[in-house]
Amino acid sequence: MISFETALEKVLQNTKTLEAENLPLLESCQRVLAAPVFARENLPPFDRSPLDGYALWARDTEGAAAKYPRKVKVVDSVPAGSLAEVAVFPGMAVRIMTGAPIPRGADCVIRQENTQKAEAGMILVFEELQPGANIIRAGEDVKKGDATLAAGDVLSPGDIGLLAALGHTSVPVFPPPKVGILATGSELVEIFEKPPKGKIRNSNSYMLAALVREYGGAPVMAGVCEDNIEDISRSIEKILLETDILITTGGVSVGDYDLLPDALEQAGAHRLFWKVAMKPGTPLLAAVKNNKLIFALSGNPAACLITFQQFAGPCLLKMQGRRDCNHKWGKAVLTENIDVRKSSHLRFVRGHWRYNAEGVPEVRATGSQKPGVLSSFRNHNCYIVLQEKTGPCKGDWVRVQFNQAVTANI
Amino acid sequence: MISFETALEKVLQNTKTLEAENLPLLESCQRVLAAPVFARENLPPFDRSPLDGYALWARDTEGAAAKYPRKVKVVDSVPAGSLAEVAVFPGMAVRIMTGAPIPRGADCVIRQENTQKAEAGMILVFEELQPGANIIRAGEDVKKGDATLAAGDVLSPGDIGLLAALGHTSVPVFPPPKVGILATGSELVEIFEKPPKGKIRNSNSYMLAALVREYGGAPVMAGVCEDNIEDISRSIEKILLETDILITTGGVSVGDYDLLPDALEQAGAHRLFWKVAMKPGTPLLAAVKNNKLIFALSGNPAACLITFQQFAGPCLLKMQGRRDCNHKWGKAVLTENIDVRKSSHLRFVRGHWRYNAEGVPEVRATGSQKPGVLSSFRNHNCYIVLQEKTGPCKGDWVRVQFNQAVTANI
Repeated sequence: MISFETALEKVLQNTKTLEAENLPLLESCQRVLAAPVFARENLPPFDRSPLDGYALWARDTEGAAAKYPRKVKVVDSVPAGSLAEVAVFPGMAVRIMTGAPIPRGADCVIRQENTQKAEAGMILVFEELQPGANIIRAGEDVKKGDATLAAGDVLSPGDIGLLAALGHTSVPVFPPPKVGILATGSELVEIFEKPPKGKIRNSNSYMLAALVREYGGAPVMAGVCEDNIEDISRSIEKILLETDILITTGGVSVGDYDLLPDALEQAGAHRLFWKVAMKPGTPLLAAVKNNKLIFALSGNPAACLITFQQFAGPCLLKMQGRRDCNHKWGKAVLTENIDVRKSSHLRFVRGHWRYNAEGVPEVRATGSQKPGVLSSFRNHNCYIVLQEKTGPCKGDWVRVQFNQAVTANI
Repeated sequence: MISFETALEKVLQNTKTLEAENLPLLESCQRVLAAPVFARENLPPFDRSPLDGYALWARDTEGAAAKYPRKVKVVDSVPAGSLAEVAVFPGMAVRIMTGAPIPRGADCVIRQENTQKAEAGMILVFEELQPGANIIRAGEDVKKGDATLAAGDVLSPGDIGLLAALGHTSVPVFPPPKVGILATGSELVEIFEKPPKGKIRNSNSYMLAALVREYGGAPVMAGVCEDNIEDISRSIEKILLETDILITTGGVSVGDYDLLPDALEQAGAHRLFWKVAMKPGTPLLAAVKNNKLIFALSGNPAACLITFQQFAGPCLLKMQGRRDCNHKWGKAVLTENIDVRKSSHLRFVRGHWRYNAEGVPEVRATGSQKPGVLSSFRNHNCYIVLQEKTGPCKGDWVRVQFNQAVTANI
């Protein structure tokens, strides 16, 4: 049996980042950029006006104020998207709209609110301006040739806007890993069936599919396999041909029908480890075939969920090129005793974390911590992670782990 | 011009939660449950074994220890998914696998590791057990009739597992709002085109589509409308027929071609407000037609992004039934002076937040704060929100706002 940390290290060492693909811009948000993007153009592409007003010579506004207006003649008008047909000379102004290019000759823009229309196409100017006032320079946002985005950046909506403005219709990003999901066990029936006595529904496959999506992957539902070594082994080989990684649930304990260890060997997978010093989830098995990872998880729902998050989760993030694949850690004060047995294993307790009224982070367990129990995942937003053999009491500071998906709700 | 808080209140007052739909279980993760789920069955459905071992009478283990084994006869074997064919009487045991139902008669299960096979189908028992030991009771996770999940719960992978175990193949959740996205402006070309001088690419529609997805909605791209009141007005009416909410970008300022206010009136929309005391994003206009909200956002990219997040974001969350639609607030120490003009408006500064080595939250601005600039959104993970007329300095505590999507990266 190996330690949690060693097991995680082995998993990440054996995880390969997927090959990048060009995805359409609209599909690439929240994906990781695979190569830096250098600006092919200036942004904005030309000097432009940030407001509605008049482009003119700063010299023509000298001394202008509310009580001492100066007068210039309006010779043209440029809406956004058009170009002025004339150049601006002293004594002249061109009506200009937000986003429109600055006409030749003009060296500043006066805000419409600081002007007033006068007779014969003239306007009164009530403000003195410096050259350059109210002009957005070409390249002010991004300069041509600049590294606008770096490989490894997780693309945000703002980044998508930048890429679109620079004319990128697709970008090289790491695609969603295709994750095979296989449940094993002769006790399983489909979720729409009424299980006869002794049987249960295959709920883990649905839970795993939701987890795969939460970590950015694309689930490939591979159904249920009965407890038969040949069937399981053949299924594993077949699913691996179509997916980047495989998750199984069930059949990894020490019982007479725990066939996964043998089935994986028969399928030609190389075992990384079997059994990790953690609770729930001790009987986790990880293997590799053709550079593809296989996680054989427990059939116990909570053990299945937690080992997915702890091992398959970081692995999926690494496959997608994420710089930081690991869950975040913190500390908090325990507000209630925890009802679990001391163990020589690292224990993951479903917890609820919050800042109390004094701003101190505190945490409590959310209910029964048995590996078969799912109801205590409701409203949990962290794990309280207990070191080997510690049994912390109310008031103690404990380590807390936040997961990707949950941190957003804090 | 109204305050930010009043504007947000008006928006949420006019936001209707969508009608719930039954979505397939696999599509309902991260969506909000529209009705409580009462358990139709016990979970687990029958008393079962949490481990591999033997089911027997506790009385037959009395006094058993490593040096004082007791002996029982194995009369049957139950893999998970099967039922024992015989009842267990004193002196007998039934081989049992994890998850298998407890055979009649037996009142405890001994772990395989604490037994040893002996002659003639007998086993040695090395541990004394109490009645009930190692039995998971029917209903231990969820009792039949219990309210397992409440209306308003955001469904997590654990919840999906629970619902699957209870036989729900679909659940009533609030669907993704269909969000129309319309860009207006004669200066806009498609993102795959090379803009002639004076024109720019329609990047805002792509940025908005990414934002819509980030907030759980389904973007409906409605293209670009030139600056023509009739065209814009007709487009608005048409898009509203097919969508739940409409976002436009451009044409809301005070220039000669800012046609949105009039086009919306012509389309029969009732104006909630036009112009909010915030920067960037002052010229925001919100209107309602047939109970559907319309946000006319600025064409300036940063103003467009920020007003979407501040107004359309909470509105989309409310449409999806979220209990808490608002962004989260905190405080942090400013590590650098901020280069913005004091303003009578509430100012949203793109910031980067982190805990420093002493565990104190600190924040800095991420670059140019001009409303046309998108590059400073790269790596930002919060807004520093400056009260009217405050100009905070390095070392001051400032208000910080975290948004939904970004908090996960902290």
